[in-house]
Amino acid sequence: MAEHTNHAWRLRSRPEGELADGDLELVSEEVPELSDGQALVRTQLLSLDPTNRIWMSDIRGYMPAVPIDAVMRGLGVGEVIESRRDDMPVGATVSGFTGWQELVLADDAQMEAPLTVLPDPLPAPLSAFLGALGHTGITAYIGIDNANLKEGETIVISAACGAVGSIAGQIAREKGARVVGIAGGPEKCAHAVDKLGYEVCIDHRAADWADQLDAATPDGIDVDFENVGGPIMDHILGRLNIGARVSLCGMIAEYNTYNPGGEHSGGLTNIGQLIMQRATIQGFLVLDYGDRFEEAIGYLAGLLAEGKLHYDETIVNGGIASAPDALSQLFDGSNVGKLLVRVSD
Amino acid sequence: MAEHTNHAWRLRSRPEGELADGDLELVSEEVPELSDGQALVRTQLLSLDPTNRIWMSDIRGYMPAVPIDAVMRGLGVGEVIESRRDDMPVGATVSGFTGWQELVLADDAQMEAPLTVLPDPLPAPLSAFLGALGHTGITAYIGIDNANLKEGETIVISAACGAVGSIAGQIAREKGARVVGIAGGPEKCAHAVDKLGYEVCIDHRAADWADQLDAATPDGIDVDFENVGGPIMDHILGRLNIGARVSLCGMIAEYNTYNPGGEHSGGLTNIGQLIMQRATIQGFLVLDYGDRFEEAIGYLAGLLAEGKLHYDETIVNGGIASAPDALSQLFDGSNVGKLLVRVSD
Repeated sequence: MAEHTNHAWRLRSRPEGELADGDLELVSEEVPELSDGQALVRTQLLSLDPTNRIWMSDIRGYMPAVPIDAVMRGLGVGEVIESRRDDMPVGATVSGFTGWQELVLADDAQMEAPLTVLPDPLPAPLSAFLGALGHTGITAYIGIDNANLKEGETIVISAACGAVGSIAGQIAREKGARVVGIAGGPEKCAHAVDKLGYEVCIDHRAADWADQLDAATPDGIDVDFENVGGPIMDHILGRLNIGARVSLCGMIAEYNTYNPGGEHSGGLTNIGQLIMQRATIQGFLVLDYGDRFEEAIGYLAGLLAEGKLHYDETIVNGGIASAPDALSQLFDGSNVGKLLVRVSD
Repeated sequence: MAEHTNHAWRLRSRPEGELADGDLELVSEEVPELSDGQALVRTQLLSLDPTNRIWMSDIRGYMPAVPIDAVMRGLGVGEVIESRRDDMPVGATVSGFTGWQELVLADDAQMEAPLTVLPDPLPAPLSAFLGALGHTGITAYIGIDNANLKEGETIVISAACGAVGSIAGQIAREKGARVVGIAGGPEKCAHAVDKLGYEVCIDHRAADWADQLDAATPDGIDVDFENVGGPIMDHILGRLNIGARVSLCGMIAEYNTYNPGGEHSGGLTNIGQLIMQRATIQGFLVLDYGDRFEEAIGYLAGLLAEGKLHYDETIVNGGIASAPDALSQLFDGSNVGKLLVRVSD
């Protein structure tokens, strides 16, 4: 067996605010020889998600914080290049928690979660399994389903062009809802309307975004697919209709500033409207819906086959070294659609 | 027919912050002679509720704001003293939106909602129909039911000794939950434990209330029956368990300060924990559950008959003139249990 050198990002300190130089360190490490029950995977694409930032902080999250000095957690897809396990032959394509690294020792006993072998041949481009047909697409499907969106209702979707929002918007349109997006900048808003089927998209960087949002929802808001949080979510709460549902998927506006036990900005002041409007906020995580992944992927693959599902990708071609800088695109909003790093071909 | 003079509180201006002198005016008005389909009711007891304050403000509420110069809206019970309608004979006891006044012209065509005739003889003291067997008791029942509280779970109830909280706590205990109350001052907390069956009650006026609440909920919080809002609710959100439910009944901490479109304090910063814990906030209003009032009253009357339901009343014996001052007790926390004004015997 050839010797292999892995390049991996290890978490050295927990970021305060935005991720800073030195919080993560890129290290070179020799990969030990495989034992029985192990395979070696070469990461091809790494998924960057807002939740990556949560995993770096020691807050009450849905998964433990990445331990200091551990390889940064992340989802990816890759190819098996060596194997001493029967269920993962050389050449197989796998997906799961690869981590931020070039080479993954696929040993179920040592991993947080085993990797999954994808079908051969792949029914869609590999990148789709980290996006429209992967965890972000499934998240969109579950969030719309939880909200029980009905034909003719008005739904607002923040981060309208993001990996989750862009798919949620198209599912909502397919269900016959009036779909109002919120995104940052005129280009994204044009894209949301032209390519993603939003009826209208509000640029939250415009000074009069609140007035625009009011004008775009003359009959109030029945469903909020919430990805952002902060003042815009607060404004939306003030426009909910009786019986409205908030599908709470993410609050990226807060991930850099969250300060447990201390002061931080962005508090919501309109929660009382949940009483007046008998409305519900339901927080959810896609990982709870494993028994519905097949249903969700089936639905999304169906839309894709019918040409009804447009998905965008921003692929950063900088190798594993580019992951931390690429992550910042999620927070400054410069990516469109699913943000990926190409780790290897 | 004798002439009658009514004394009624009319809303002259919308309060800013706490109710101030001049926002309401006590007027004397002659009652016109009855026409067919009308009855005259002498108010006996008037219910004071946090929502009274909401009704004075021109916010997006669940009922229209009380119009300027109209009689202040309120729930009460009374006796029919004159009648030209068959369904409401002289001597009958009625309940409903009597308003803040001594005499009520019971004319369905002119009222927001018709009065209801109570059973004769009354199966419980009259005051109970504005409390434990009335809208506040039913609110407690519905809020616990919505939360799907299970045996062995930990529930936190704010305003633990209030009209709703005191009943909710006893229902929760009956269901086998660990019931943690939050109330203002050591006397109320002692009462909550001694008389209302709370396992422990946290005095939110203590400097270390947050530490006490943490210590009282070592296994986290499964259900929050929320009556208050503000920083304590925010702290509770940070202690929710996976799958937790917040039954959002009231946010009295905000009713005096609510300032639509402007700044106000008390924003919630821990809403993101709803995602991490896959938790739900459900706002509700008892008036949506009319088809379940009979079920709720049956359950509560059963507990009462078995000696398992303790209810407290603070009755202000100052006549209709005392209503505005009495209302302030809800906001400074000086009442225990259901707050009522005795308007007449």
